[in-house]
Amino acid sequence: MKLARRVGLEGLSIGRLAEELRLSKSGLFAHFRSKETLQIQVLETAAAHFVAEVVRPALGRPRGEPRLTGLFEGWLHWARSQKTPGGCLFVAAAVELDDRPGPVRRRLVRLQREWLELLANAARRAIAEGHFRSDVDAEQFAHDLYAVMLGYHHSSRLMKDPRAENRAATAFERLLDAARAEGPGSSRRRVLG
Amino acid sequence: MKLARRVGLEGLSIGRLAEELRLSKSGLFAHFRSKETLQIQVLETAAAHFVAEVVRPALGRPRGEPRLTGLFEGWLHWARSQKTPGGCLFVAAAVELDDRPGPVRRRLVRLQREWLELLANAARRAIAEGHFRSDVDAEQFAHDLYAVMLGYHHSSRLMKDPRAENRAATAFERLLDAARAEGPGSSRRRVLG
Repeated sequence: MKLARRVGLEGLSIGRLAEELRLSKSGLFAHFRSKETLQIQVLETAAAHFVAEVVRPALGRPRGEPRLTGLFEGWLHWARSQKTPGGCLFVAAAVELDDRPGPVRRRLVRLQREWLELLANAARRAIAEGHFRSDVDAEQFAHDLYAVMLGYHHSSRLMKDPRAENRAATAFERLLDAARAEGPGSSRRRVLG
Repeated sequence: MKLARRVGLEGLSIGRLAEELRLSKSGLFAHFRSKETLQIQVLETAAAHFVAEVVRPALGRPRGEPRLTGLFEGWLHWARSQKTPGGCLFVAAAVELDDRPGPVRRRLVRLQREWLELLANAARRAIAEGHFRSDVDAEQFAHDLYAVMLGYHHSSRLMKDPRAENRAATAFERLLDAARAEGPGSSRRRVLG
């Protein structure tokens, strides 16, 4: 995973990994069989880490808005902790692979779809719990939340904006605010820009 | 620009360009002097195209929200038209260069900062015109608008989501809606999720 973040998923080959780990290339080849399998296993491993560090802790929070907030906070923490070098493997791989058809790209798309679906389901649960209005589009919510995190990646990593995290939190709060059911909880609407 | 989109800005060298154009490497070297200068000139050329295709047409619209909408629509059209191959050079370069200090990265950051500043100024003008509330944070607005476009890039290019453009338009509308001054124009608030 470290090497993939540094050289890009496409730069990750069995030969390069063998060099890095000072292991025999033939031994690694016997294990992984192909460059694509190696790349896919790196994606799967990163996804398993993501589930353990972001998804599982949030499942301990009450359903609905608290759980969505837990997912967002865990995700932000994940993005922050992947700082050096290369940043979040999924964001880098998304830009790297979007024009490269094949099994690695397909696996990446499936992982991203599962994550978007999990976020949409959490938003649906927030509707069911009465935290969000019934006319909220849960898939749009998931899409918009993803965009907030891409914005965070851009402003923190490229722009080195010290307010990046604050900006992301404000954008998330606005997203919640637009989705919230009317009532005492929606009083923050006027405050945020 | 085409070659840079295909091989990445970092993959763009004088030798590679000479090969692609069937020109002599020494002639190109005499012109560009270094790989970094070539890369910077590609960024500058892409920025000039962006100004001509996105910024200039929007300046013909009335100041405030109409001009912001013009900038968004032009930007969306730009992102869509960069479809093959490699997509928007700036988005790809942002992920590619975020860990590579040097003159090319510095120029990219400056171009992005100028664009974010132009968007924030357009939002400030929308406040001055009374289209937006006076407490809207113009820099946050610019940041959020950038995030909407990054979300569009992800959903259209990697996920091949047929609703990508619709999602981006809905996100932009929600952004406007949250920023709008109270009054008859804010009646759409209840409709969007």
